[in-house]
Amino acid sequence: MTDISVGQFNLVYNAFSFTIAAMGAATVFFFVSRGQLSNTYKTALTVTGLVTLIACYHYFRIFQSWEAAYTVVNNKVTPTGVAFNDGYRYVDWLLTVPLLLIELILVMKLSTAETYAKGTRLGLLAVLMIVLGYPGEVSPSHGTRFIFWVLAMIPFLIIVYDLFVGLKDSIAKQPQQVRGMVSAARWITVLSWAFYPIVFLFPLIGFQGGGAETAVQVGYTIADVVSKVAYGLFIYVIAARKSEAELTDAGGAPGRLAAAAE
Amino acid sequence: MTDISVGQFNLVYNAFSFTIAAMGAATVFFFVSRGQLSNTYKTALTVTGLVTLIACYHYFRIFQSWEAAYTVVNNKVTPTGVAFNDGYRYVDWLLTVPLLLIELILVMKLSTAETYAKGTRLGLLAVLMIVLGYPGEVSPSHGTRFIFWVLAMIPFLIIVYDLFVGLKDSIAKQPQQVRGMVSAARWITVLSWAFYPIVFLFPLIGFQGGGAETAVQVGYTIADVVSKVAYGLFIYVIAARKSEAELTDAGGAPGRLAAAAE
Repeated sequence: MTDISVGQFNLVYNAFSFTIAAMGAATVFFFVSRGQLSNTYKTALTVTGLVTLIACYHYFRIFQSWEAAYTVVNNKVTPTGVAFNDGYRYVDWLLTVPLLLIELILVMKLSTAETYAKGTRLGLLAVLMIVLGYPGEVSPSHGTRFIFWVLAMIPFLIIVYDLFVGLKDSIAKQPQQVRGMVSAARWITVLSWAFYPIVFLFPLIGFQGGGAETAVQVGYTIADVVSKVAYGLFIYVIAARKSEAELTDAGGAPGRLAAAAE
Repeated sequence: MTDISVGQFNLVYNAFSFTIAAMGAATVFFFVSRGQLSNTYKTALTVTGLVTLIACYHYFRIFQSWEAAYTVVNNKVTPTGVAFNDGYRYVDWLLTVPLLLIELILVMKLSTAETYAKGTRLGLLAVLMIVLGYPGEVSPSHGTRFIFWVLAMIPFLIIVYDLFVGLKDSIAKQPQQVRGMVSAARWITVLSWAFYPIVFLFPLIGFQGGGAETAVQVGYTIADVVSKVAYGLFIYVIAARKSEAELTDAGGAPGRLAAAAE
């Protein structure tokens, strides 16, 4: 295990605990608020809540693995010899990254055929991206890390291209009042995802030992909170506005809004 | 670790356990009662419940950290060498303090634009306040503690000013029957929050060793219960009265009230 300082240990420890709380609270928010939406957008919120629920579980495991990897007594950190398990992150992403793309597709309310086609395509590309990243993450060799980074970047760039070019026409079809937000959600996806390949390269660009370990753990944690919680809140606001617009278009009175609630 | 007496250890221990129970019960109350409100105020109660849920989680962790820091056998307290983690409080506040401000804004039912503008402004000031407090809290130096107290007081005072001056017009626009309560909620925010900078200064104003540790822990705990549970109950009462007023204004019969409930 890498030697780290007490400050580094605590920073990572507190960042993990913060994320358990943030993911857990977000999950409750998404599931509770789901009832206030029209039926069309409930599934988008269900998926949004599943993403943060799965991440909450994994951060709980990651937190425990971090605790098991070191003993901190009398202001001194000693590695226990039990390895910190990086696998949890990849297992998490394998489940949540395809779901994050599906959230966006669902909230856009494309045709059923398009929803299935785009969901399958983007979901499979996301799985491929994560499977290709893992061998590089766990390899001690900088060369191997770099090769798998390049391989994982191929599906990553196809996804980015798809989000920008493939979904362009669909954005034009969104109701006026949410068009800007849907476009912003696409940008948040790309920008928050861009964190991951950068963090992945930290060990190659000068971060070493405890500093590299701390930077990678805190970096991934920030990226996860942005891409799951902040992005999920965007999806929620889009779904809420579209639900309201649908009810207004249908000549709905407040009574209809109430009827739409669970 | 600071040497503390058995009485001091038990006081803090029981205060933490009390708070787990209070936060947990408040969370259930807010989520269960949410269904009795009109749709307009449901999100305010969702946020209120999230605050106490997040705090319940952190008090559970704080309780465990307190237990791990000392061994109490044969009426003698011995520090174990494992540090009590002050980080949990700051991580909690980082999430809950912006949410507490958002509760108040949501229950006031401002325009959508104003809700976003004020929520963002106050939320960011709250984050800045907490981030500036942390280095002072964990520093053993009284000088450093004082400098960061001064720095954190700047966003604190801006928030207080915003609540009193910035929201003055909005209060005049509240329905007659809740105007006094909304104003009181503003006061509770400021008064309960004023506890924190005072508790923060305890080590500087004569509290020493185990006494300082006990006073800080019990002080923060009381402040958390007032600012999250008592304040949350105020938000609930305001939301309930406004829901009732809306339904009466709309000429609502009990049937409408039932339809608005989940």
